Amino acid sequence: MVVFTNSLNGLRIKTWARPTKGFVRGVLFQHVIMKNVQNPIVIDQNYCPGNLGCPNQDSGVKISMVTYQDIQGTSASEVAVKFDCSRKNPCRNIRLEDVKLSYMRQPATSTCNNVVGSAGGIVVPASCLKKGLVLLAKRGMGNGDEVQNKQVIFRDYYVSGLPKESDLILNAATIELKVPEGSKAVLLKNLYLSCDPSMRVRMKKLPDSASYLPSFRPGSPLYGFGVAKVLDSGHPDFKEGDLVCGLIGWEEYTIIQDSKRVGMLTKIQFTDVPLSYYIGILGIPGLTAYVGFYEICAPKKGEYVFVSAASGAIGQLVGQFAKLMGCYVVGSAGSNEKVDLLKNKLGFDEAFNYKEEKNLAAALKRYFLEGIDIYFDNVGGKMLDAVLTNMRLHGRIAVCGMISQYHNLDEPEGVHNLMSLIVKRFRMEGFVVSDYFHLFPKFLELMRQHIKEGKMVYVEDISKGLENAPAALVGLFHGRNIGKQVVLVSEE
Amino acid sequence: MVVFTNSLNGLRIKTWARPTKGFVRGVLFQHVIMKNVQNPIVIDQNYCPGNLGCPNQDSGVKISMVTYQDIQGTSASEVAVKFDCSRKNPCRNIRLEDVKLSYMRQPATSTCNNVVGSAGGIVVPASCLKKGLVLLAKRGMGNGDEVQNKQVIFRDYYVSGLPKESDLILNAATIELKVPEGSKAVLLKNLYLSCDPSMRVRMKKLPDSASYLPSFRPGSPLYGFGVAKVLDSGHPDFKEGDLVCGLIGWEEYTIIQDSKRVGMLTKIQFTDVPLSYYIGILGIPGLTAYVGFYEICAPKKGEYVFVSAASGAIGQLVGQFAKLMGCYVVGSAGSNEKVDLLKNKLGFDEAFNYKEEKNLAAALKRYFLEGIDIYFDNVGGKMLDAVLTNMRLHGRIAVCGMISQYHNLDEPEGVHNLMSLIVKRFRMEGFVVSDYFHLFPKFLELMRQHIKEGKMVYVEDISKGLENAPAALVGLFHGRNIGKQVVLVSEE
Repeated sequence: MVVFTNSLNGLRIKTWARPTKGFVRGVLFQHVIMKNVQNPIVIDQNYCPGNLGCPNQDSGVKISMVTYQDIQGTSASEVAVKFDCSRKNPCRNIRLEDVKLSYMRQPATSTCNNVVGSAGGIVVPASCLKKGLVLLAKRGMGNGDEVQNKQVIFRDYYVSGLPKESDLILNAATIELKVPEGSKAVLLKNLYLSCDPSMRVRMKKLPDSASYLPSFRPGSPLYGFGVAKVLDSGHPDFKEGDLVCGLIGWEEYTIIQDSKRVGMLTKIQFTDVPLSYYIGILGIPGLTAYVGFYEICAPKKGEYVFVSAASGAIGQLVGQFAKLMGCYVVGSAGSNEKVDLLKNKLGFDEAFNYKEEKNLAAALKRYFLEGIDIYFDNVGGKMLDAVLTNMRLHGRIAVCGMISQYHNLDEPEGVHNLMSLIVKRFRMEGFVVSDYFHLFPKFLELMRQHIKEGKMVYVEDISKGLENAPAALVGLFHGRNIGKQVVLVSEE
Repeated sequence: MVVFTNSLNGLRIKTWARPTKGFVRGVLFQHVIMKNVQNPIVIDQNYCPGNLGCPNQDSGVKISMVTYQDIQGTSASEVAVKFDCSRKNPCRNIRLEDVKLSYMRQPATSTCNNVVGSAGGIVVPASCLKKGLVLLAKRGMGNGDEVQNKQVIFRDYYVSGLPKESDLILNAATIELKVPEGSKAVLLKNLYLSCDPSMRVRMKKLPDSASYLPSFRPGSPLYGFGVAKVLDSGHPDFKEGDLVCGLIGWEEYTIIQDSKRVGMLTKIQFTDVPLSYYIGILGIPGLTAYVGFYEICAPKKGEYVFVSAASGAIGQLVGQFAKLMGCYVVGSAGSNEKVDLLKNKLGFDEAFNYKEEKNLAAALKRYFLEGIDIYFDNVGGKMLDAVLTNMRLHGRIAVCGMISQYHNLDEPEGVHNLMSLIVKRFRMEGFVVSDYFHLFPKFLELMRQHIKEGKMVYVEDISKGLENAPAALVGLFHGRNIGKQVVLVSEE
């Protein structure tokens, strides 16, 4: 363990920007604590004092295989990590592992020119990642049967604003296509990924207990529900060739070592439906619609049902459940194309484009002269407020999601009409699908039957290729998808 | 039926402001429709053209016994009724019955100088009532066994602001102490009146279906729950001397003719408790606390319970129910005296003065390290928002009242933390006690037992005399009462 205190330089490699032959290779910096150090980590391949006598500002010295491991503490300057190499002669195989540096109690930043390498564990500052010049989160790095493993890396936490593509980094890691000998790990080839509005919530640092899925880890791949094929398994429950669904990484291959997480994978038994259905109508969105509607809303035949985000992954199913139940159902969506889909393909009695309504409460009044018995809320905010004033005596609101608020999680909009709760004596209840996993077998049987009999349909919006996953996820928050947004990573 | 259309004057009595002897007496104007009339109703006792030659502006002509009956329509000026009499020689016995005049789709106003009389039925405009110069809502006016019947009259609807004493008019009507021959009416001598926060809501014009008790009628006495003694009855279910509780007027005597309303009276069987208990612990507040806690909150032993307005009519009972259930219970109130009462008399585990807390969420966190299982909400607004962030998994909020919002019913505060509904999967449910009247017998038996065994106590704040009723009601909204606010109209 080394401690640097109040010094100008920390861990620095500097070569002169003059035509020189030579190399720096295989350097390991580890277990260092920085206390208010001006330049904690620096690689300067092009040092040129006074900028004189350095034609092309280019060092001939090759820098490679430099590893920074367990470097922690405070930086005296905002930029705590500077990598400045030349374009013609980039620094290669630079690795950051467990580097955590702060400046003024905030994560410090970094700058990166022409550096190639990887970072694993906690990498704060993470700003170099933005440029995609630093490769992160490699697993199974070593020699042997490595293949490329494209990944979608989560850059860093933020509170305000909708997800942007720049919050995600497309990364090319490598992975060995074998589970470690003697382990109970499972190696997956990922086929389909689910784009889910609640992923925005996980881009904020949440207290551990705040959500049924924890926050993403900066510098690691996103993860969520997906469909995959087992390539290798040390676990007795899974064997090569099995198809599974469950929590997987946003990457081409995922190795799951934690036995708890392996235990959360479900083997897919029936392949007479599209595999993507297991992250849609037969997966979490399906079960969510099912428990939200049947368990939380406790519907009765003939009731008046309203669904927001009605053409989405969940909404389209709620509407169809309501029709099967003999309810009158109206959906709202954000484009006329979606409205058309609701009315003409998904069997809603009525639908409207909320973006074309100046007064949402009046729009609802138009469709629900006698009020709303059941509201399945996917959006929160202004629509919820408008619904509150239109509720019917003893109605029920299932609070499933609030996508309208996810851009500003620390300052959500105020909802004003809660007095209606008393006047109309109704119930609002939030729910999370994970509390109802025990209903999955019953649900699956019912849904397969419905699909087989043509009683239910499912509209998907499939984006092809992991490289299009960031755009697909971002598009969700702008309503660009029509139906359930899925990413196809690989055909089986 | 007379119709006035677009005329300057409507029904006008005008006497010159010159020393004259004479009188105008026993005039009846009835069944008139005004269509855009400049001065629909005028009494001008002091007419003085050019203000010349009218020493003291005083007419010697006495004006009395003028009745306006069923005068409806529109006024072309804002002031539709002008009564201008002299101080020395006021106009007496002026009566308005079913006068309803509007100006620009709003109720027109009136001005009143030195007029004494009465108004019955709907009197819009009601602004003269403000001065107390027009006496209203006399019943049983006639000859015979009339006694004075003091009343608290509701002046007019308004949307914003807390109730003020000037919204209520103390009136001295008269009443015959007999029910009409052959009727099934019941004549009550009122003993106790209940002051209830929801009375504010009824001071706004509500759609008929909006509340289980309708809006008050401008110009009529307030009414609400009370205890009374039957003085005379034509109804087979009631006889002289019966004690009853139910909906009665804010007046000394109430005659109830509508058989539906008679049917809503309940005979008091047990007089081994203070009679005021029947509008408190054994009445609507008691049943409200009972159904709210046991039916809506579905409590379990050991759960963490929070009650706002905890020393009030309902809150003090919820806290005691929670303790009987084996829960941990904390209450909030608006003064240190109330906090003391909660902790030392009512058995709450903890209590705090919300007015002394800068950060309500932090205050709740202090008392509920593990979160709140049950919140019994009497206040809404900021406290509700703070509770939302402190709820525990699968908690329950019973929404009983929102007194913090009653001053601004058309623009209630925004509640921001509804996302917690999803994160903590809890339930909010509004309820109204009238949906649970079938539980009353069971409730009454239980409560009498609890009282007898000393398991429950009840703190009342008793204001003596109907003339103090307006102050008592207004005080409720400033938290001046300690315990259930009751008005004692008369000892039995």
